[in-house]
Amino acid sequence: MRLHFNTIQFFSPLSGEAGGVMAGEVKVHAPATVANMVCGFDVLGFAVNDPYDEMSICFTDKPGITIINEDEYNLPTIPELNVAGAALLAMQEEMIEEKRGFELRICKHIKPGSGVGSSAASSAGAVVAANRLLGDLFTNEDLVRFAMNGEKVASGVKHADNIAPCIYGGVTLIRSIFPLDIVPLTAPPLFVTIVHPQIEVRTSDARSILKQQVLLKDAIRQWGNIAGLVAGLLKSDYALIGRSLEDVLIEPVRSILIPGFDQIKQLSKEAGALGGGISGSGPSIFMLSKDEVTAREVEKQMHGVYEKLSLDHHTYVTNINQTGVRFV
Amino acid sequence: MRLHFNTIQFFSPLSGEAGGVMAGEVKVHAPATVANMVCGFDVLGFAVNDPYDEMSICFTDKPGITIINEDEYNLPTIPELNVAGAALLAMQEEMIEEKRGFELRICKHIKPGSGVGSSAASSAGAVVAANRLLGDLFTNEDLVRFAMNGEKVASGVKHADNIAPCIYGGVTLIRSIFPLDIVPLTAPPLFVTIVHPQIEVRTSDARSILKQQVLLKDAIRQWGNIAGLVAGLLKSDYALIGRSLEDVLIEPVRSILIPGFDQIKQLSKEAGALGGGISGSGPSIFMLSKDEVTAREVEKQMHGVYEKLSLDHHTYVTNINQTGVRFV
Repeated sequence: MRLHFNTIQFFSPLSGEAGGVMAGEVKVHAPATVANMVCGFDVLGFAVNDPYDEMSICFTDKPGITIINEDEYNLPTIPELNVAGAALLAMQEEMIEEKRGFELRICKHIKPGSGVGSSAASSAGAVVAANRLLGDLFTNEDLVRFAMNGEKVASGVKHADNIAPCIYGGVTLIRSIFPLDIVPLTAPPLFVTIVHPQIEVRTSDARSILKQQVLLKDAIRQWGNIAGLVAGLLKSDYALIGRSLEDVLIEPVRSILIPGFDQIKQLSKEAGALGGGISGSGPSIFMLSKDEVTAREVEKQMHGVYEKLSLDHHTYVTNINQTGVRFV
Repeated sequence: MRLHFNTIQFFSPLSGEAGGVMAGEVKVHAPATVANMVCGFDVLGFAVNDPYDEMSICFTDKPGITIINEDEYNLPTIPELNVAGAALLAMQEEMIEEKRGFELRICKHIKPGSGVGSSAASSAGAVVAANRLLGDLFTNEDLVRFAMNGEKVASGVKHADNIAPCIYGGVTLIRSIFPLDIVPLTAPPLFVTIVHPQIEVRTSDARSILKQQVLLKDAIRQWGNIAGLVAGLLKSDYALIGRSLEDVLIEPVRSILIPGFDQIKQLSKEAGALGGGISGSGPSIFMLSKDEVTAREVEKQMHGVYEKLSLDHHTYVTNINQTGVRFV
């Protein structure tokens, strides 16, 4: 049975104070995210306004976590095997007194395995929504920690470069995972074109083909670029952002898994994109542009390449999401 | 014979226009610099107000480059073997019509081999001074290119992480050497304590002990830190600057060449320093502090460690030089 409260009085188990009056159901939109941002492998990511997942959560008299999928993806409903479930379980472990069950409904629009943070949207959306139900008991940093458990279910690795931007919005730097150190970075207006070729690239495969050792000289080039990118974002220097969007380590290895990658990158830049690359571990490709006209021209070029290759694909023209998971 | 003009009329060989009236002799102070800045190996550096070299340059009727040392260091006076000479030779190669000789007088106060950019100060000071004599014919970026030839004489490698901050002042990022891409970074007020133990660490030795391959996971940690440091500088976030001053790749290898390194670092942080590490390739150690009182307390701790080790040393308490090479 699903319990519907219009409002509930919440007693905070950590502060010992009343946490305020809350709605009995919380609905959120959890945005897609682009991890790595070319030269920021494992440490940079940003949220976009489109696509996003729709989720709602409420307390239920059934203990534990009940997951109801309202989309076509047939994702697991056993909490330990579901990314949102794993995130909520981690959250429940730190709830001292509050032991009521959660019922989570998920309607995914971000296709799993697309490389734009589908698992992060589920994990992050679930804990942000649950936290609101609990009267904002936890900090955003706590929520990132919980949601990283979802990433571990999805890819075997606790990483935060999708989770953090999904929760914080904007561009985020994860300076360190252990201990967690998240640095929100301001950025000038940026338009984002994403193409998702309908092929499967498993995150675990994309990770396993990477060499565990790299040349020091390549690493130096990479950290020169990430330093340039961060400076370009904070200084609103579009040209510097463009010059810094270079990846000499990961892209040369991973891009071979993505048909048409080199051509899309070249044509996008010729169309005026600042630059771009693989979104997360792929197969989606993203490009950044200074204005929407350019971003739409880039989309045309992406269409052109995949039409020639007769490869099914989806495209998005969107911009950076500044709020993260949004209450609706 | 040394020619003394009070003023000369200069004809710019590049623009074909008169370059203005200049003094016949140009005197400069060229500041010491701290390269690497812990997590920014080969790409970050900053200039300090103390120590600095004094240099003067004038045209002479003797072709080529005449070098006169006015200090005790007995550095080579053959231009090809002198860092300032090599920098000026590179500059002369790009001077189309102007073929008069330069006479350069150098009085070094930055001890060669100290790790605070002694060679860079000579090279950068020489080309900045000569450029003023030529009516500011070249851009700062050109001057960095010329001066890097001096670094090649000194260490066998063309690097710009001392040269660029020496010429630009402040903190500079060298995003890329080829092609050269220099990004000046604003920084909040920072006090710098430097200790120079009187031991010799050759740049070439300090470079040769580095592994040419590094673990990807360590490289990721390093670029998370440099991204954090750049963000901390641009956001004037002292705590973030402090957290980001971590080097998991170079310092663990190089610090074994510097007696007392670990203890100085620990005591400096306990005294309130934000953090710090090896200056360039050592043996100097630098620490950053938010205020001068802390910087002086750090100096005391450095003294203490080297007095116990009976190791001769010099210390400097200074701050970031914002102007680079200065005309006097």
